[in-house]
Amino acid sequence: MDINFKIINDPVHGFVRIPHGLVLAIVEHPVFQRLRDIKQLGLTNLVYPGATHSRLSHALGAMHLMREAIAVLREKGVVVTPEEEEASAVAMLLHDIGHGPFSHALERKIVYGVSHEELSLALMRHISKEMGGKIDMAISVFTGEYHKKFLHQLVSGQLDVDRLDYLKRDSFFSGVAEGMIGLERIIKMMNVSYGNLVIEEKGIYSIEKFLISRRLMYWQVYLHKTVVSAEQLLIALFERARYISESGNSLPGSPAINYFLTKREICCGNYLDEVTLELFTRLDDTDVMSAIKQWQYSDDQMLSSLCKMITVRDLPKIKISDKEFSKEEVDGLKYDLIFTGEIYNKGYDSDEGEIGILSKDGMVRDVYKISDMLSARAFSQITKKYFLCTANLN
Amino acid sequence: MDINFKIINDPVHGFVRIPHGLVLAIVEHPVFQRLRDIKQLGLTNLVYPGATHSRLSHALGAMHLMREAIAVLREKGVVVTPEEEEASAVAMLLHDIGHGPFSHALERKIVYGVSHEELSLALMRHISKEMGGKIDMAISVFTGEYHKKFLHQLVSGQLDVDRLDYLKRDSFFSGVAEGMIGLERIIKMMNVSYGNLVIEEKGIYSIEKFLISRRLMYWQVYLHKTVVSAEQLLIALFERARYISESGNSLPGSPAINYFLTKREICCGNYLDEVTLELFTRLDDTDVMSAIKQWQYSDDQMLSSLCKMITVRDLPKIKISDKEFSKEEVDGLKYDLIFTGEIYNKGYDSDEGEIGILSKDGMVRDVYKISDMLSARAFSQITKKYFLCTANLN
Amino acid sequence: MDINFKIINDPVHGFVRIPHGLVLAIVEHPVFQRLRDIKQLGLTNLVYPGATHSRLSHALGAMHLMREAIAVLREKGVVVTPEEEEASAVAMLLHDIGHGPFSHALERKIVYGVSHEELSLALMRHISKEMGGKIDMAISVFTGEYHKKFLHQLVSGQLDVDRLDYLKRDSFFSGVAEGMIGLERIIKMMNVSYGNLVIEEKGIYSIEKFLISRRLMYWQVYLHKTVVSAEQLLIALFERARYISESGNSLPGSPAINYFLTKREICCGNYLDEVTLELFTRLDDTDVMSAIKQWQYSDDQMLSSLCKMITVRDLPKIKISDKEFSKEEVDGLKYDLIFTGEIYNKGYDSDEGEIGILSKDGMVRDVYKISDMLSARAFSQITKKYFLCTANLN
Amino acid sequence: MDINFKIINDPVHGFVRIPHGLVLAIVEHPVFQRLRDIKQLGLTNLVYPGATHSRLSHALGAMHLMREAIAVLREKGVVVTPEEEEASAVAMLLHDIGHGPFSHALERKIVYGVSHEELSLALMRHISKEMGGKIDMAISVFTGEYHKKFLHQLVSGQLDVDRLDYLKRDSFFSGVAEGMIGLERIIKMMNVSYGNLVIEEKGIYSIEKFLISRRLMYWQVYLHKTVVSAEQLLIALFERARYISESGNSLPGSPAINYFLTKREICCGNYLDEVTLELFTRLDDTDVMSAIKQWQYSDDQMLSSLCKMITVRDLPKIKISDKEFSKEEVDGLKYDLIFTGEIYNKGYDSDEGEIGILSKDGMVRDVYKISDMLSARAFSQITKKYFLCTANLN
Repeated sequence: MDINFKIINDPVHGFVRIPHGLVLAIVEHPVFQRLRDIKQLGLTNLVYPGATHSRLSHALGAMHLMREAIAVLREKGVVVTPEEEEASAVAMLLHDIGHGPFSHALERKIVYGVSHEELSLALMRHISKEMGGKIDMAISVFTGEYHKKFLHQLVSGQLDVDRLDYLKRDSFFSGVAEGMIGLERIIKMMNVSYGNLVIEEKGIYSIEKFLISRRLMYWQVYLHKTVVSAEQLLIALFERARYISESGNSLPGSPAINYFLTKREICCGNYLDEVTLELFTRLDDTDVMSAIKQWQYSDDQMLSSLCKMITVRDLPKIKISDKEFSKEEVDGLKYDLIFTGEIYNKGYDSDEGEIGILSKDGMVRDVYKISDMLSARAFSQITKKYFLCTANLN
Repeated sequence: MDINFKIINDPVHGFVRIPHGLVLAIVEHPVFQRLRDIKQLGLTNLVYPGATHSRLSHALGAMHLMREAIAVLREKGVVVTPEEEEASAVAMLLHDIGHGPFSHALERKIVYGVSHEELSLALMRHISKEMGGKIDMAISVFTGEYHKKFLHQLVSGQLDVDRLDYLKRDSFFSGVAEGMIGLERIIKMMNVSYGNLVIEEKGIYSIEKFLISRRLMYWQVYLHKTVVSAEQLLIALFERARYISESGNSLPGSPAINYFLTKREICCGNYLDEVTLELFTRLDDTDVMSAIKQWQYSDDQMLSSLCKMITVRDLPKIKISDKEFSKEEVDGLKYDLIFTGEIYNKGYDSDEGEIGILSKDGMVRDVYKISDMLSARAFSQITKKYFLCTANLN
Repeated sequence: MDINFKIINDPVHGFVRIPHGLVLAIVEHPVFQRLRDIKQLGLTNLVYPGATHSRLSHALGAMHLMREAIAVLREKGVVVTPEEEEASAVAMLLHDIGHGPFSHALERKIVYGVSHEELSLALMRHISKEMGGKIDMAISVFTGEYHKKFLHQLVSGQLDVDRLDYLKRDSFFSGVAEGMIGLERIIKMMNVSYGNLVIEEKGIYSIEKFLISRRLMYWQVYLHKTVVSAEQLLIALFERARYISESGNSLPGSPAINYFLTKREICCGNYLDEVTLELFTRLDDTDVMSAIKQWQYSDDQMLSSLCKMITVRDLPKIKISDKEFSKEEVDGLKYDLIFTGEIYNKGYDSDEGEIGILSKDGMVRDVYKISDMLSARAFSQITKKYFLCTANLN
Repeated sequence: MDINFKIINDPVHGFVRIPHGLVLAIVEHPVFQRLRDIKQLGLTNLVYPGATHSRLSHALGAMHLMREAIAVLREKGVVVTPEEEEASAVAMLLHDIGHGPFSHALERKIVYGVSHEELSLALMRHISKEMGGKIDMAISVFTGEYHKKFLHQLVSGQLDVDRLDYLKRDSFFSGVAEGMIGLERIIKMMNVSYGNLVIEEKGIYSIEKFLISRRLMYWQVYLHKTVVSAEQLLIALFERARYISESGNSLPGSPAINYFLTKREICCGNYLDEVTLELFTRLDDTDVMSAIKQWQYSDDQMLSSLCKMITVRDLPKIKISDKEFSKEEVDGLKYDLIFTGEIYNKGYDSDEGEIGILSKDGMVRDVYKISDMLSARAFSQITKKYFLCTANLN
């Protein structure tokens, strides 16, 4: 690999170095540059005005941490070849490439029924074809097919660099200092045992702190009640716009947004047709916000009202409760708009594998089994809450 | 004034408190909320990916500092009535309300020939009429007609809270730590002497630091050569779009952008017609970026090429020089696009008044006269540089 | 109260303002200035070299937070008179005045059998007499006799400003970032309900974070195994020095240290005799360290060895275990020095009262009952561990 | 070199790694550990209470930066062998080893007439002999005899890692944020040209910022008027103590301090006798402060008064002036104590060599010649001020 780097300033990590060659080529690719106009946290800036950071800045940060993690592992004797390092860096850059605008609310709503993971993989394959297979190793690290499992675990696992970056970044930009994590220490404590990514015993408090901060960020930012309310509004708005479009009435808006509003039969996950992929890569926050601004003046009273509520930040009232709202309670309400639903804060998701703690004697045990802090109900069960949003149209 | 506040998190200042009543009403006004989709630094995020912060967050931060400054002055015995405090807070919220999208590059280009100050004042008058005169005192603080001069100097002067906020904020989000200033100390050192805002003698090093950091932010961020290059490209792009539109060929885009692209006869500064004001308040970054994305597919080869250069971040090459590029040199170049021009870094602008330093004996002297640091050439003269941008269309 | 302040720089809180008058008089009192030469964390700098901060800086910081907390409470309508504010500030300045050098290890060892709380109160009464009763209200706030209970709770309780300052300060100086707490938010959420200090509901995550950080600071700093080992060594060293002194052999050292090494019959808590108080106020870290340096050259082989172990940082080996070390195990060891003992990390101490959370309906409930995070074993029981230190003399 | 490290937490740089082997051996050496009880800034904590950091923490930090700088240089193709890296790290650890307690005031006063540089070299030679020549390369890097000049320039030059560490560290602990420097960027910009340490052109603003911050730290911290006053007091106190001791009257105090108070004929720089060296390495802040506390009770009225002034922080009044105080003015004063003298803030000292800026064409030019900021009077001449301290004894 070239010894030269392009250096950019990142307020979260300081200097981020982008190695010349394949990594820089991906950064300069239009499909990657499109992330510049997609906010990492969608509508969250309605509550935390600082949280306008882009998915592009997150992807660069995650790539940076991947390279830091690999440097630490190498120092401890773990073999990672230059090609593997490059592939892992590329996998991090592209891991979120399938996110559309306001993805937290609109996933599967704009690109009907398709998840961002499916889109990410489809786009990577698309780029791979275009580049003559150069990112195939990156894809196999991303999917977990690559034989060195720890590289995949760094991309996607209970303690991947994706989470490490986004927790710190979202905390930094939102100003919610309680979410700040000790990144440097966690990375310094990484090691590999029998092919799996593990954390050395001395790092156990940092892991506790990381899991606690994550839970806090969920309640305080990702599931903040005003954010939930705004997202519900956005979903209703898009459902209305789709209904109008599918009824044959055209709405003003970019070609890309119009394409997706009238198309339901997108299918087959990783093998999306080229037109759909092409139009997807033209779609970012500006299409959505620009459309919403114009739809304020739509003849459809409902659509127009919903759009105005977003633009002037007049959001539905929202109640959060530990118990489900009863049918009677909801039916008795007199509002033009009523949404109910559930939000989850998963302390621990066994589907995602464990966080292994490596003790000095070489044993690896799940952090949840040995930490007397993580025995809390907050981690031993999924916390589910119920919301009820209400609003009147004017 | 109500003792209650709406509290928001700001990553730069911590908790920002918005007093209920008039100040909150202005924050919730659609004309203010529009600043949410206007980036403070326009295209700068092409160089500093973290710099996506909005003009809304800056306006809130400046309002916060205004209230902090007033609290310090009151402690020193300066009289500021609750109404004056409210008016000053409102003036800070609205001081930049006339900025359009990408204003650093496109000022006077979208709203043809009108400055953002003229637009700010026109919009304030518009809001004032709507609110039955409630913000008239804020307007007179803004324009400097109000008899307590120091309030206007806090809004707009050599050491106003506008600058204090934006320098710190731009430094924070860009990650250029060298621009960080000691806000807390500067505000603590403020005082009023014979009606003028001054800084107490002990604060002189902080003022030096502030002026030096400002200069550094100019070179490193505001006038960063890649930013200049991107802005020149954007200007050329808009001139082309205007040319096409004025020739009678319609371009895709929002109604607002189309209105301004075909209108030149906007005039008369503060007394803009209602239609123009109304459409101006619908215009933000999303109109511009959404239009540029669509214009990539224009039939006009030149417009299409210019737009692609922005979206894929393929910017013109740029040279910066202390000397003017000679006509011969420029004429000899073989490029499709050639822009030349000047950039300025004004260390000190006597038009803006001095920064008065208050010594213990009550004397006030200009900081430039007593600081042996600010005797540098960097401050004693305007630094002018020349740029030359070149690119080929494909 | 005077509107003027003496302002000092504190790296933890920024500017700390000391009101002229009684508060400044206490700061300038020799008994307070003595805290300058007593390290807040004793021998901890053997492990965390940055942790050299003094008890004086902590006392100033705690006084600052007390004034911040009172300002927040007043804004919410809680009445605190200027005299009560002054008394509370003085109580914070003096709350730790009875700490001797290396108090964590040597409490009750130098001033034989007397606790630092008893000494604090005795010294406050001493100062009060000297000042003609001026700090009597401060004393009654300190002891809890004053009728406004919340003032005492701010001085000493589950969530007092003492803890808020020392956790943040110890984290800052040791460089253990994981211990950082969101001070500003906790203080902003304080309120008073039926005379008791409470936290508003929105602050619950900050309280969780505070309690978790506290626990982490215990394991990572206060009970760090090398620190425990050094403290055990210091205790053994002092017991030896006392044995020698009491046997009638004089050791080099300051008059103050010699006085206490030969005196056991100090009694009666708050009513210590004047000579003892006077000599106690001459005793700080320099007496102890200076003595240890000289005792390295003592004829007593054991004392000399113990002293050298401290000065060259050659500390006993230490094992920490969840189970008690068995008598057989310990008896079988072949070392010159063997110490065993217990360390505690109390997540929650019901003796200290609860942390009341105030919900919107006015109810106050204990945070431990409503937080699903604080249900962890780490908080529901005292964590006790056992240590075993071993060393050979040379 | 061993791949293993001892890791310590440093609040300024985060994790500092001490390589096993020679570097760790030096850190554990008693002569190095002695720096633990010598404050980096002496009496400065009388003004900035946070500034209690030790010379040991500075030496570790400077060693860390040396290793960072070498890593950057290697990446750019500069050859530094493992032995040279180790020697440079050792040179940094030991560069200040010759500082005695309160060295800023008492240099040449305790160890009569000998500078700390002479003592550093003498102690290094002492250690070298003891270790069988293992640190000879470190000594030759320290003295500048080693053929790779840039290594010496990193230890001691206009932009050495000593200054980089102490400016940042002193700023951090004093809480004077204006002194904060962009360490990371400066180190990233280091390079070697024709054997000399240089800074790449892009780093010029960081260098300006560094030099400006340095000047600010001089005025605001190192030459703060209250610090100057305290240091003058300390000097007078030691002169009096020496006078009494040399007159044959013994003062209480440690053997080390008594040795130096009666000895003037220490000579010959690098070849100090073994007894002197041995006693010097027993001398730290605790000897001085412990002696001062005891001398408060001396029969000598003057010594007793001077000591009390220090312990209760009752410092002489001080005036700072741009002009010399006239003989008449001084003679007319009625005070028991009058000290006058000069303080210097050297913006630029040509004796120390230049800071070379490497432009893209390979040319190296002095930063003072090309920066229009450093043209300020503040840098073009030495700023000299005059002080006048006055006090009465009681």
